[in-house]
Amino acid sequence: MRNIALLISFDGAAYCGWQSQKNAPSVQQRLEKAIEKVCGGPSSVTGCSRTDAGVHAKKFVCSFKSGTKIPAEKLPFAINTALPHDIRVKKAVYVPADFNARFSAREKTYAYKIINAPIADPLFIKRAWHYPLPLSIKKMKKAARHIVGKRDFKAFMAAGSAAKTTVRTVKKISIKKTGEQIEIAVTGDGFLYNMVRIIAGTLAYVGAGKLSHRDIPAIIKAGDRRKAGITAPPQGLMLEEILYEKGIDI
Amino acid sequence: MRNIALLISFDGAAYCGWQSQKNAPSVQQRLEKAIEKVCGGPSSVTGCSRTDAGVHAKKFVCSFKSGTKIPAEKLPFAINTALPHDIRVKKAVYVPADFNARFSAREKTYAYKIINAPIADPLFIKRAWHYPLPLSIKKMKKAARHIVGKRDFKAFMAAGSAAKTTVRTVKKISIKKTGEQIEIAVTGDGFLYNMVRIIAGTLAYVGAGKLSHRDIPAIIKAGDRRKAGITAPPQGLMLEEILYEKGIDI
Repeated sequence: MRNIALLISFDGAAYCGWQSQKNAPSVQQRLEKAIEKVCGGPSSVTGCSRTDAGVHAKKFVCSFKSGTKIPAEKLPFAINTALPHDIRVKKAVYVPADFNARFSAREKTYAYKIINAPIADPLFIKRAWHYPLPLSIKKMKKAARHIVGKRDFKAFMAAGSAAKTTVRTVKKISIKKTGEQIEIAVTGDGFLYNMVRIIAGTLAYVGAGKLSHRDIPAIIKAGDRRKAGITAPPQGLMLEEILYEKGIDI
Repeated sequence: MRNIALLISFDGAAYCGWQSQKNAPSVQQRLEKAIEKVCGGPSSVTGCSRTDAGVHAKKFVCSFKSGTKIPAEKLPFAINTALPHDIRVKKAVYVPADFNARFSAREKTYAYKIINAPIADPLFIKRAWHYPLPLSIKKMKKAARHIVGKRDFKAFMAAGSAAKTTVRTVKKISIKKTGEQIEIAVTGDGFLYNMVRIIAGTLAYVGAGKLSHRDIPAIIKAGDRRKAGITAPPQGLMLEEILYEKGIDI
């Protein structure tokens, strides 16, 4: 048995998220089925993140143990033959036995996209949040500066979720506008449940003037989810990049 | 009654094309239903192009006659409330009574997109043609030079289609590669049925070495559809731009 890591990419529109659930197709379930068909089974795949329904991934890493004789470099093509077109395996590598796609990750970058125009672009609506009110990028950037850092992000975690610690480090937030499109890229060592979507919703509220950038430190300090902005909808979220410890090249 | 032109944008994935057909949803049918609901009906909408099933449009112009009291600048918002999210009205203007969305157009630009990589990008597969063999942009550009001009494009028209004349002017073809994506933009005064998709398929064949760029003049001269390349699939095609006679600003 070897431990094999896969770099995959998917369009999340048709799935209930990464994680398998009863009565709803998940990316994990589709992938396990394909791996079982190609490598033999049963197969259990661990993902780097439990993305929500409708969230997309440019780079998502997962791993599974297998005794397959198919060499790693041929696995993407073999597994892709058994996958739907909205999920593709881009790369496969052997990783140490103790590699864990979720806990071995040291950095993730999510991008959140907004269409900021009175009328939404129908060619982009499945990959972005339509926010019709004008947003001030300047105000959003000022608010982002209060979020970057090692902080207790309890106020930016979906209510009711359990996490050992709510302290995370947000390394960078970049916000750029191209035409009608705004992209918020958030890099961190890890994220709480719904954290990036709540950051995006809060920054939009600041951009629209519903909150002031000066409110952010108090919101974080209070640790009260209700004081932050709304949870931006899932289709605007994309896992862009994931980095691992040294020696893991995927 | 006034003649009203609409600038619309749509994702063609869910439709049988622009034109209404029995037992299949079309963009035209959805739009007529929405206009009837908002402006009263019955409504008959003329489109600038009969796009095929799965083809998208960034800028598509259509027109209809109506006695509605809703001013043109408010029509997009009103009609959009009755449309699905994959079709949006961006703009509405009054046009002269003799304006015809199809025949008054003087220039159209279509963009055809190709994913040129061994493994397709699942985030782009609904907007592009996955062509796994390496394509030479240099060869494709050489072939394009033989296509630009006023010519009889019978060889680039779907077999069996009827057109008064098969002479068209291709004003420009630009081909650019960004990462794995190739975009072929074709500007002309008008196009025959499937013409841009056959141009894209033929240029891909040249890029892959299945045809030589030197074959193009003979293919055009022979006027035989079978000598050109395949018809590239619809999802890669996008109507990018459409220009009208002077005085029509949409």
